[in-house]
Amino acid sequence: MRATTIHGPGDIRVEDVPDPTITLPTDAVVRVAAGCICGSDLWGYRGQSRTRPGQTIGHECIGEVVEVGPEVRDFRAGDFVVVPFDHCDGTCPHCLAGVQSACLNLGMTQSGQAEYARVTQADGTLVRTDVPEPAAYPSLLALTDVMATGWHAAVAAGVREGGSVVVVGDGAVGLCGVLAASVMGAETIVAMSRHESRQQIATSFGATHVVAERGEEGEAAVVELTGGVGADAVLECVGTDGSMATAFAVARPGSTVGFVGVPHGVELPVGRMFQKNVGLAGGMAPVRRYLPELLRLVASGRIDPGRVFDAALPLEEVAEGYRAMDERRAIKVQINP
Amino acid sequence: MRATTIHGPGDIRVEDVPDPTITLPTDAVVRVAAGCICGSDLWGYRGQSRTRPGQTIGHECIGEVVEVGPEVRDFRAGDFVVVPFDHCDGTCPHCLAGVQSACLNLGMTQSGQAEYARVTQADGTLVRTDVPEPAAYPSLLALTDVMATGWHAAVAAGVREGGSVVVVGDGAVGLCGVLAASVMGAETIVAMSRHESRQQIATSFGATHVVAERGEEGEAAVVELTGGVGADAVLECVGTDGSMATAFAVARPGSTVGFVGVPHGVELPVGRMFQKNVGLAGGMAPVRRYLPELLRLVASGRIDPGRVFDAALPLEEVAEGYRAMDERRAIKVQINP
Repeated sequence: MRATTIHGPGDIRVEDVPDPTITLPTDAVVRVAAGCICGSDLWGYRGQSRTRPGQTIGHECIGEVVEVGPEVRDFRAGDFVVVPFDHCDGTCPHCLAGVQSACLNLGMTQSGQAEYARVTQADGTLVRTDVPEPAAYPSLLALTDVMATGWHAAVAAGVREGGSVVVVGDGAVGLCGVLAASVMGAETIVAMSRHESRQQIATSFGATHVVAERGEEGEAAVVELTGGVGADAVLECVGTDGSMATAFAVARPGSTVGFVGVPHGVELPVGRMFQKNVGLAGGMAPVRRYLPELLRLVASGRIDPGRVFDAALPLEEVAEGYRAMDERRAIKVQINP
Repeated sequence: MRATTIHGPGDIRVEDVPDPTITLPTDAVVRVAAGCICGSDLWGYRGQSRTRPGQTIGHECIGEVVEVGPEVRDFRAGDFVVVPFDHCDGTCPHCLAGVQSACLNLGMTQSGQAEYARVTQADGTLVRTDVPEPAAYPSLLALTDVMATGWHAAVAAGVREGGSVVVVGDGAVGLCGVLAASVMGAETIVAMSRHESRQQIATSFGATHVVAERGEEGEAAVVELTGGVGADAVLECVGTDGSMATAFAVARPGSTVGFVGVPHGVELPVGRMFQKNVGLAGGMAPVRRYLPELLRLVASGRIDPGRVFDAALPLEEVAEGYRAMDERRAIKVQINP
């Protein structure tokens, strides 16, 4: 099959690789209808996390089941499915506790930017849906990771009806965090964003205020917006030391920072956390946990998270998609095999 | 008055110092009926945190109000009071949110191991009680800090009825954490303790299991006790890097470490927290928030946190109390002025 591979920092290629096959009896193989590039793919692209030269890349996709292993009972060839990036068995103690991202049989989509992808623990992982029109692909794609991740940040931060929320990060996850906070009924939602196109989406997703300043200036602006008290809940959707510092600086005492940005070089301010009683919760999103509810919200038209996609490219041009996201010319790029 | 002072690491003295006075109209002065030494006093005693040579020390006491400022409305001379170590106005946004330890007018008892102590924000801080028999002093003293702090750890960790709890630390706070978890209905309570006298108190406070091993061996023992899954809630009651590492190692995915040990040299394992979705919450205990409930529990005989006191000394012998606690010959020492 044709698949996106990464050979080193900045080196994205499309190559012929072996088709994924049923390796375990609980596997399924999905023909990718659409995949996309994730902000976390950029860590490898930028050389900030290690990759194996030639490995396939891409962990977000939707598509049609083409083959299932002998122990898969709930899916069959022809089913159209949304594929959570984190695969889970649905039966281990962690899955039963709603922490599917810590499943004892955790797997991950390995070739979402390709023609086919293997899904492990298919019965626990997949969610079926009606065959969608291509126009509906973006919102379904968003559910495989970014929307569920933004939602997880809001859940972890304890967003409540009528409360104030600050979202640090204006990538697709941060924007989805704004949307999540809005659905959950937050009254004040501050999006920290310098980019006009992202500010517009944030506003359309429910942000009541936009703070363009960064660092101490941005923190001061947010604290002022919250009456000098700080926010009732903060969503950290980046994963750098600076973004985490901002998150803690704007969190009111007793609140929680919900973090979902993969941490890179983060040193948590444990002294401040102690003094101010500001907690930290979150981590890798248990996508499968939220997927049924999010699908209902999409189906009912309550949310349209697909709006975070501002570009779509054929698979053969995926490298341009990486460049566009790396240079922040695009928020999120759909890849069509 | 006679007061305990610290002049440097290991240098505890009893000296004549000026009596505390009403400095602000919201102050009260309390004649100390009994004070005590806190585990956190040992940080300064051991030179692990800075002290000003000659400063008075001691932040836990109970006693009788002898004078109030002109703006104090709810207390008068003669009232017997429990003095939370953290003074709070009770009216600022953080107090109203139950985070009195982040009060905008935060104060702290400065001379709890002395004849008199000044209490700031008396109306917000103090809680009156009937004049107790001296035999009841220990349990009331425990409420000024350690019992409220152990309780806070349990609240922050989200201890639930029927759940499993691990308590890291067998100091007075850790033991009170065991007691709190027991009152909250935890089914499995694992106390990590190597000291027989502390193990006995832990068991009498409700611990169902004691793990004497430390480090990786101790962590493995706890994980085994929880069916390989990890604990539903973990109380970190020490504040060192090692104790924090143990806390996260035994916390099940999706759970929360409730931390109340003043952090010293702690580097939080943000990568593990992300991967396992283990949160951190807690900090300096908002004693005033819990005090009414804890007083009821003491009055009804439901809890007897005073059992953490295993020594009592006259004020003039306070230095021996520090030595005994430093050498772990005593768990907690009451000081009688």
